[in-house]
Amino acid sequence: MHILIIGAAGMVGRKLTNRLVADGSADQFTLVDVIAPETPAGFKGKVVTRACDLAEDGVAESLIAERPDFIVHLAAIVSGEAEADFDRGYRINLDATRALFEAIRREGMKSPYRPRVVFTSSIAVFGAPFPEKIGDEYFTTPLTSYGTQKAIGELLLADYTRRGFFDGIGIRLPTICVRPGKPNKAASGFFSNILREPLAGQEAILPVGEDVRHWHASPRSAVGFLTRAMSMDLAPLGARRNLSMPGLSATVGEQIEALRRVAGEKAVRLIRREPDPVIMKIVSGWPRDFETKRAAALGFKAETTFDEIIRIHIEDELGGKIG
Amino acid sequence: MHILIIGAAGMVGRKLTNRLVADGSADQFTLVDVIAPETPAGFKGKVVTRACDLAEDGVAESLIAERPDFIVHLAAIVSGEAEADFDRGYRINLDATRALFEAIRREGMKSPYRPRVVFTSSIAVFGAPFPEKIGDEYFTTPLTSYGTQKAIGELLLADYTRRGFFDGIGIRLPTICVRPGKPNKAASGFFSNILREPLAGQEAILPVGEDVRHWHASPRSAVGFLTRAMSMDLAPLGARRNLSMPGLSATVGEQIEALRRVAGEKAVRLIRREPDPVIMKIVSGWPRDFETKRAAALGFKAETTFDEIIRIHIEDELGGKIG
Repeated sequence: MHILIIGAAGMVGRKLTNRLVADGSADQFTLVDVIAPETPAGFKGKVVTRACDLAEDGVAESLIAERPDFIVHLAAIVSGEAEADFDRGYRINLDATRALFEAIRREGMKSPYRPRVVFTSSIAVFGAPFPEKIGDEYFTTPLTSYGTQKAIGELLLADYTRRGFFDGIGIRLPTICVRPGKPNKAASGFFSNILREPLAGQEAILPVGEDVRHWHASPRSAVGFLTRAMSMDLAPLGARRNLSMPGLSATVGEQIEALRRVAGEKAVRLIRREPDPVIMKIVSGWPRDFETKRAAALGFKAETTFDEIIRIHIEDELGGKIG
Repeated sequence: MHILIIGAAGMVGRKLTNRLVADGSADQFTLVDVIAPETPAGFKGKVVTRACDLAEDGVAESLIAERPDFIVHLAAIVSGEAEADFDRGYRINLDATRALFEAIRREGMKSPYRPRVVFTSSIAVFGAPFPEKIGDEYFTTPLTSYGTQKAIGELLLADYTRRGFFDGIGIRLPTICVRPGKPNKAASGFFSNILREPLAGQEAILPVGEDVRHWHASPRSAVGFLTRAMSMDLAPLGARRNLSMPGLSATVGEQIEALRRVAGEKAVRLIRREPDPVIMKIVSGWPRDFETKRAAALGFKAETTFDEIIRIHIEDELGGKIG
């Protein structure tokens, strides 16, 4: 079993690779990203790592010429950058995705080839105003170029699957929380910062009110969604190949209460309130809650309390200890 | 006022041109299609007609270099052909549409330019299974490559509009009935054939049962949708720029009853029943009914009885007389 992961150097890509190595069912990995991904520790099979730009002529073809059995496409220009650089966003998020799908179709014209394709989409395909909960049949009216590019990728994935060129599934990830690493400038960063930084004894800034509600899942759940998407029978999906993943709808206030329960008042006191009208406005257009019946019926699972999300961070990132 | 119509040689394109000439507000037309459109009779202003392929390098740029105030994009490879020829469908229905939108954006980078763009989409963006009525917030899960390409065009239109590159609106047309001309091989052809042919004293074949329900509007309504989309204020649409148009939900049996009322038993006897399982299967995946609240609130109107649809055909195509 040969697995190709595109975007393997990112946070989700690295965690997914490690999980797949631990599972032990793959005998070959091809790991690509714009910077060369690390070779996973403890893997006995063949590993090729490669730094490349999927949007460049011939790159998708060269990756697909090896006929991987599974292709996980995680690579993307993130929301803020796709909004700031229109051409670059469309080039990477749309053209490169289409080049990948086309390379698979053309490989299959030489001799039969129908790999599993797992595409990571995003709840950014939805745009306000929203119903109380976004159901499985709600329309995609993105309010960013990034969300537009992901929604187009979903449509292409469904059409290429329907035509039999590959066996595809699109996974709309919730916001990943607690995201490990340093605080960054993403507008959504605070959802993780206000937990991760206090757990490490550091101060964090909260730019919005405690009543802000959003849709979360842990990095461990995100990896679980992807491995399930790789291994499950996709026939029950029919022609509707894109799924909103389960998650936890919680307010910032509920996040803070969970932090208090898990790490105590000392941690909570490290959250500094600095209201930022720009971030407040951006966040007000984001989804707050979903009803993900299809994904639930298909066995996808996420956390049900924020205490659990915080404990997963402590286990997976902090060696089980609060700093 | 300079109006560019792409796909001007088609049935809707010709009728739209004639209506706009009669309205008298344009002083210049550029009419393009894969075959050169006819110069409209009785127009005093400047008319350029041109046979060209919008997907070819430089064609979109050359059309947009003239800075038309209104751009109506009707050109498309139809459903059956886009399904039979995957490359050609994506090239014309997706790449050419994107080339047009990009040409407008790039023209606007030279000096401010923000034309009105009217894009014709289709109810083919929806795919079965459906609710009883398809509402304005129902998701697009096309079951054809044509429907996929139209849904992608809608997403691009909304994003280019949101970014301020043009002022766009996407119009999802119902099936046009009664379509003038000869019977053709389109799977949907019989909806028009069973009315048009008997009205002309000719036999017509009905390949499905009388209980088949579908969504219709006259050619006159289609032109009305487009002229309204050209002239109305689009600000109330916000970011949601694509609209299902109103229509008439009717069964084949209701169509036949209307024919009986308008043209008598003699016409109805010209319908020959020849059940065709292939056409039955295709039609079973098509939308049957819609609830088009947004379009109605914005003043878009269609026929409310099939008698009216038939009378419009008699007035507009048969000089007011039944043959």
